[in-house]
Amino acid sequence: MKQFNVAVVGATGLVGKEVLAVLEQRDLPIRKIIPLATEESVGTIMEFAGEPHVVGRLDSDAFEDVDFAIFTATCEVSEKFAPVAAKSGAVVIDNSAHFRMAPNVPLVIPEINGNLARRHDGIIANPNCSTIQLLMVLHPINVEFGVKRAIVSTYQSVSGSGKRALDELAAQSLAMLTLKEPVVKEYPYRIAFNLLPQIGDFDEQGYSVEERKLVDETAKILGQPNILISPTCIRVPVFHCHSQSLNISLKSRASRKDVRDALSAFPGLKVVDGVLTARVGDSEGDENDYPLPSECSEQDEVFVGRIRLDDTVEFGVNLWSVMDNLRKGAALNAVQILELLI
Amino acid sequence: MKQFNVAVVGATGLVGKEVLAVLEQRDLPIRKIIPLATEESVGTIMEFAGEPHVVGRLDSDAFEDVDFAIFTATCEVSEKFAPVAAKSGAVVIDNSAHFRMAPNVPLVIPEINGNLARRHDGIIANPNCSTIQLLMVLHPINVEFGVKRAIVSTYQSVSGSGKRALDELAAQSLAMLTLKEPVVKEYPYRIAFNLLPQIGDFDEQGYSVEERKLVDETAKILGQPNILISPTCIRVPVFHCHSQSLNISLKSRASRKDVRDALSAFPGLKVVDGVLTARVGDSEGDENDYPLPSECSEQDEVFVGRIRLDDTVEFGVNLWSVMDNLRKGAALNAVQILELLI
Repeated sequence: MKQFNVAVVGATGLVGKEVLAVLEQRDLPIRKIIPLATEESVGTIMEFAGEPHVVGRLDSDAFEDVDFAIFTATCEVSEKFAPVAAKSGAVVIDNSAHFRMAPNVPLVIPEINGNLARRHDGIIANPNCSTIQLLMVLHPINVEFGVKRAIVSTYQSVSGSGKRALDELAAQSLAMLTLKEPVVKEYPYRIAFNLLPQIGDFDEQGYSVEERKLVDETAKILGQPNILISPTCIRVPVFHCHSQSLNISLKSRASRKDVRDALSAFPGLKVVDGVLTARVGDSEGDENDYPLPSECSEQDEVFVGRIRLDDTVEFGVNLWSVMDNLRKGAALNAVQILELLI
Repeated sequence: MKQFNVAVVGATGLVGKEVLAVLEQRDLPIRKIIPLATEESVGTIMEFAGEPHVVGRLDSDAFEDVDFAIFTATCEVSEKFAPVAAKSGAVVIDNSAHFRMAPNVPLVIPEINGNLARRHDGIIANPNCSTIQLLMVLHPINVEFGVKRAIVSTYQSVSGSGKRALDELAAQSLAMLTLKEPVVKEYPYRIAFNLLPQIGDFDEQGYSVEERKLVDETAKILGQPNILISPTCIRVPVFHCHSQSLNISLKSRASRKDVRDALSAFPGLKVVDGVLTARVGDSEGDENDYPLPSECSEQDEVFVGRIRLDDTVEFGVNLWSVMDNLRKGAALNAVQILELLI
């Protein structure tokens, strides 16, 4: 079997490390793993498959002999180096937002539009974590019943902002619990024991960058420019796993069990809904069974529960989902794209 | 001026203490304050207006000479003792859920339906905190533009579950930050750095008690049995202040400025919306100005911001609100009812 050289750009970041962890687990035909980083992390030793690897410098020569390059750094890094990597003959899987809406760049969630992964000009984009979480739930419902409109309110964890933000949540929490002044650096305000109703800059209409991504990326991935998505994105003081409250209006009638069955049958989704299980008589069902951030960390699946009909709109359904944003929301999805290409 | 004797039932609880604090601040014609509690807190010394008060025993004789009794204990306590108090000639303002939906009990938010406060048979009910927060925003919009449907996803703080829950959030957080095992008692799962998509038991349709309260109490307070409210209630690891993401569809067109103006003109509401302020040209406006739990604690107002039009529905508006759930969500609203009666 053919073996490949895989570079991971931004290897020392949270998503970069998670990519290496997922690559190890999934036993791909990798000849050489090449961790790359910008200045300050060059020379760091990272372990992969039991062997030490020195983090190399990200420069224009870094992609010789690279078959695939997974970018997990900033938009600026991707803008500058993804074309360099592609020109060197590597296929880039880019986790930044920079190329996502470019017409010649496929934006891929393997379970949904994996067929597009091969139609690339050297760069394939990984969607935003919140988009992946939303569409993993919305797509099977859309296929089965049709989705007219979805309202999503997010509860996004701090790991989405990187390692320094995780450290800050811990440090601020500890400071507050010991009656010291929390230090605020990573966000405009304290995140410990607080909620921040802003993820990214606001546009003229008052929507944040994160909210616009949900709308724009959904339209592109589903190939439905007119699908109606109304987003509100909130940062919560949780270390790992994003959560979403979803209110969906369907194009055709579905029972709670119909929705549950459509979700259960979809790869990568796991329904956790004790009340519904009891209701449809499958088993006793523990009312306290629903998706929780504390139980979804380091899990591959998107978890969904609290499935309720919403009679305030025609064919309405309300749901609650939780996903490890570093895993399926970033690293795993990128590695799954790699698997489609290999 | 006539002076009144006011009893506070459950005086040593979080809401009881807040009621005493609000009563002190607002300088009412109180002759005597009578803190009452069940067994374990009887004899506790509490300060009111600089004087020590011994917490008395809640029994059937406790309401002699009492003009007004504010109940801030459990449903069971209200069920048993509110009729006793009323029979003794006291007017009861009850913060529990027990009497809220009873036809002969007015359910009052003074800014909205204060005119009903005097039409009581001895008991007036204080709405649930989340209902107060929702309606303080929804009512002025409903009056001005008409509300067809509102979807509310809540981010509810731990103070809503009482003092032991606050202690548990602190203890669990500290345990996790020092790599110890968090102890879980007050909720079915850990609340520290976690989200709990359950507030109260679930009904057959999968909605929680807290979610049903939002629907039922809204219909009663607005006198609109057919108003459409779709609720999802989530507990978040925040000590104080509830937050809500609202998606409203109106009956008539409104600009962001129209909505802002309707909200600004309403007593008890404060609009904090830096992006919109910049947009409508009132001033520079700081994009980072929006309601935050960390800034709304111990404030009387309900704070609202992130006002955006939602073009996924006819006349749609999205909002974000924050309120101190112990203050306007409980104690302040009860004291405001008392002021209507005095």
